Amino acid sequence: MTQCAVPQPPALHPALASRRSPDVFDAGAEVSPAEVDVLLDAARLAPSAGNSQPWRFIVGRRDDPVHRRIAAHLAPSSARWAPGASLLVVNLAQVYVEDTTDWPYSEFSHYDLGQAVAHMTIQGLAMGLDSHQFRAFDRAGVAAEFGVPDHWEVTSMTAIGRAPLRAANAVQVRASREEVTWARDS
Amino acid sequence: MTQCAVPQPPALHPALASRRSPDVFDAGAEVSPAEVDVLLDAARLAPSAGNSQPWRFIVGRRDDPVHRRIAAHLAPSSARWAPGASLLVVNLAQVYVEDTTDWPYSEFSHYDLGQAVAHMTIQGLAMGLDSHQFRAFDRAGVAAEFGVPDHWEVTSMTAIGRAPLRAANAVQVRASREEVTWARDS
Repeated sequence: MTQCAVPQPPALHPALASRRSPDVFDAGAEVSPAEVDVLLDAARLAPSAGNSQPWRFIVGRRDDPVHRRIAAHLAPSSARWAPGASLLVVNLAQVYVEDTTDWPYSEFSHYDLGQAVAHMTIQGLAMGLDSHQFRAFDRAGVAAEFGVPDHWEVTSMTAIGRAPLRAANAVQVRASREEVTWARDS
Repeated sequence: MTQCAVPQPPALHPALASRRSPDVFDAGAEVSPAEVDVLLDAARLAPSAGNSQPWRFIVGRRDDPVHRRIAAHLAPSSARWAPGASLLVVNLAQVYVEDTTDWPYSEFSHYDLGQAVAHMTIQGLAMGLDSHQFRAFDRAGVAAEFGVPDHWEVTSMTAIGRAPLRAANAVQVRASREEVTWARDS
């Protein structure tokens, strides 16, 4: 009888499997300017519809002036935890053609921005950084603060940093593989 | 004089740095059902606004019946190359609350779907699989084919497979790091 090796099934990448959106960050951990560079590179090299690249980022490192200007616009709920992250990154989507307010730039602006932010956050995981994306801030306030014109939208924010290993945060229940599969034969 | 080690700057993950959207796939390469399982897991564990998980997927493996039903709706431009990929995955976004056609389900449906697809494609890169997302197909035709109700949108498609190393595809020029940075101090 021949003993056969059981093939190892393909496995979920550990960084994706253990990913979470912590609401506690190590307020002593710093992310260096060189790390910020790499996070931005990950985002800007993401794919987009027709290479439209409908994204921009405002990056504040904790205690720098841009960080203070961003943090001033957090909602009370996010102001409790987000400023402790090493970075606050505001994610902008180009929704209209330049200098217009009703001519859509791309039907995939939000989809593509989501992809770029995912590339940034997964690059962060590769560098030991956790991320928490959120919307609890004054969008119009941030737009005014940074002179964002009407054809761009202040869409979301990401807090990026090192989460304490023991940080408690609720495990989010996800739909099963079957539930997210609309159709499949094999 | 002391000789100091120059610190290695953090580097872009090689999978993200070399990622491309090939339009040639190895038509002999198969992606196994177990690999499909893992790709779906990567997507379903992506973050979403309020854990809304506004995503579903139709997965066809080359030569299976679902693949044939998807491929029948490709536009001529994508029909030239996409059917050779090991998988065709249709990406659906929940845009309205169930059984409504004007009550938005989440302002982040497209953004979150983009993130989930990014998690799927980056998991693919970890498994040696390239991806090419595209929109050149009959959205309404796919919706009718698979009975997608009006509160879901057939948003995009991803061809996933192994690209020949020498596959020629144009290098997309990207905005520089400075161009995608709206504001930053340090």
